[in-house]
Amino acid sequence: MHKKLLIPGPTEVSLEILREQTRPLIGHRSKEFFQLYAGIKEKLTKFFELPADYKSTVTTASGALWFDIVGRSIVKGKALVCVNGAFSERFGRTIRDCGKKADFIEVEWGKVVKPDMIAEKLETGEYDTLAVCHNESSTGSRSPIFEIGKLVRKDYPNVMLAIDSVSAMAGDKTLPAEIGCDIIFASTQKCFALPPGLAVALVSNRAVERAKKVPNRGSYTDLVEIFEFEKKHQTPSTPNIPMFYALDKRMDLLLEETYDKVYQRHKDMSEYTQQWAKKHFELFPEQGYESITVSCVKNTLGKSFGELKEKLAEKGFAIGNGYGKLAEKTFRIGHMGEWNVAGIKEVLALIDDIWGLYT
Amino acid sequence: MHKKLLIPGPTEVSLEILREQTRPLIGHRSKEFFQLYAGIKEKLTKFFELPADYKSTVTTASGALWFDIVGRSIVKGKALVCVNGAFSERFGRTIRDCGKKADFIEVEWGKVVKPDMIAEKLETGEYDTLAVCHNESSTGSRSPIFEIGKLVRKDYPNVMLAIDSVSAMAGDKTLPAEIGCDIIFASTQKCFALPPGLAVALVSNRAVERAKKVPNRGSYTDLVEIFEFEKKHQTPSTPNIPMFYALDKRMDLLLEETYDKVYQRHKDMSEYTQQWAKKHFELFPEQGYESITVSCVKNTLGKSFGELKEKLAEKGFAIGNGYGKLAEKTFRIGHMGEWNVAGIKEVLALIDDIWGLYT
Repeated sequence: MHKKLLIPGPTEVSLEILREQTRPLIGHRSKEFFQLYAGIKEKLTKFFELPADYKSTVTTASGALWFDIVGRSIVKGKALVCVNGAFSERFGRTIRDCGKKADFIEVEWGKVVKPDMIAEKLETGEYDTLAVCHNESSTGSRSPIFEIGKLVRKDYPNVMLAIDSVSAMAGDKTLPAEIGCDIIFASTQKCFALPPGLAVALVSNRAVERAKKVPNRGSYTDLVEIFEFEKKHQTPSTPNIPMFYALDKRMDLLLEETYDKVYQRHKDMSEYTQQWAKKHFELFPEQGYESITVSCVKNTLGKSFGELKEKLAEKGFAIGNGYGKLAEKTFRIGHMGEWNVAGIKEVLALIDDIWGLYT
Repeated sequence: MHKKLLIPGPTEVSLEILREQTRPLIGHRSKEFFQLYAGIKEKLTKFFELPADYKSTVTTASGALWFDIVGRSIVKGKALVCVNGAFSERFGRTIRDCGKKADFIEVEWGKVVKPDMIAEKLETGEYDTLAVCHNESSTGSRSPIFEIGKLVRKDYPNVMLAIDSVSAMAGDKTLPAEIGCDIIFASTQKCFALPPGLAVALVSNRAVERAKKVPNRGSYTDLVEIFEFEKKHQTPSTPNIPMFYALDKRMDLLLEETYDKVYQRHKDMSEYTQQWAKKHFELFPEQGYESITVSCVKNTLGKSFGELKEKLAEKGFAIGNGYGKLAEKTFRIGHMGEWNVAGIKEVLALIDDIWGLYT
């Protein structure tokens, strides 16, 4: 039996979208492809309100490729990385594994790094890049990227701000010009409600100029090469064309719903889920910094997640266990992409039944 | 009107395969996924006759990612690169762009680098890696990888042999243990007759051991991390699950046809095409080194390719123009994947008609 996915990604994808992938292939150096890709980028520009000094690009890879792109093409000397969970830690580790220096501001999992902590470090003048994870899907916490962006743009204009919004972009607010970031990227299998296989990135012209001064960028991780090909509405190597069809369709649906309504729907889902969670359990993330796409719940009642998983599977649903060291202590509900409050209500009611949660 | 693709990739993909991509998504950290991936690897092992000291891996990216993986994870000090066309040149350039030293053995486009030329350079002892492009799709030439492998394994046991077989693997002979190579990789949109979006690589344990000694491998390009996750039948980041479904199905079809028959079919298609080409034109590649998956034809009659392209499109087919600097001088027919001699005959007969080629 198929289980509808409410894990923190991949999320459920409609058959309508999956079927887009069965359209016949076209050559990636053909006019048909250039038109398809130009159209996708026009829609991304509209949806994310990109001004002239920002560009979008779609890469054939998981979103994690962009950890490497930041490490290879953006960090010149030393990066500052906000670490508050498994994915932000991975962002920082990747930058180091690219042979670049990186200092971590580490806070307890579930908490977020605040602008004043960042200011204190940036004030040293040691850093050329700041890396932040917007939505820590391991802990369900949401970093204050607008406040961080405001600080960086005001006081540290030469620092590049790179944001991993893998599990938030197209659900939570991610307008790069308003944030003031230089790179913000996401995977398609989260709020875009597409299969995994592509990453969408919104990049400032400044970032591409910076990349030109960073040596040894490689090829697949070379931001300069990517944007050279963008000029011709092409990608440096063969892109996943069926996924481009699906992304094109998804952008139509998102634009039809409108940015504000997409955001409100995610906010409504998270509020409903989090009220439910607080009634029976506790929320794991720091108050006021709860993700609107993934709710991470402290299993304060010591309920058996294994049993829940099994019984939910029988009903045709899958939610997520805790991540890494939180595996036993938390569980996670991904409410993103095509989901709505009615669907979330149904699943939470099933959990009530299975675990005997009565009010 | 859909044009069936006989370009050098992406190639035509059947609806049966495209539809595999519409199966519901599963979590990539779920038992269902581990089983799917383990099954795919079992089939790759069987088809490519991998002994215990070779392993397969599937990465969510174009095949070109593997240029970077070789540059980041395999080349320690200095690589020797055989350059005889656009893609082998890109392989070498990527290694250099990763900040590694690389010497090129350059021969004229259309020719191939011979084992004695390689031996002369390897004899200096300067190189820890040899990079070869199996099938130069820009020129339709086929490198003698078995002879090269024999030489390297016999006389230079410490040199890692990395082969780009992007447009040949699963069509031409690519049994890594028989070749004696350490890494051989391909893209799915060529002989595997799948959409683009994945790369398949067959890797020796030696290569993974080498990678452990190479610093600054990054993350997406880290061979060690890839094979750590392989142990659990997982990938470091979210893989393109719909494409894994399609690859699984493709491996069933390839195993059913058998390795020898797949190879023979590609050989038959290339022989038919090349006999046709020699009757009217000349072949571009050096005699005896013609690709069996892409025929590159010298347009000795000065026929208008633009007109041919247009008229073939009306009939529902697309063949390839010449690549880069050969754009005006050659044209290319990709006979790979699901194609067979009957299909090739039909298209060549159409070309006869359009161009008025009579015998």
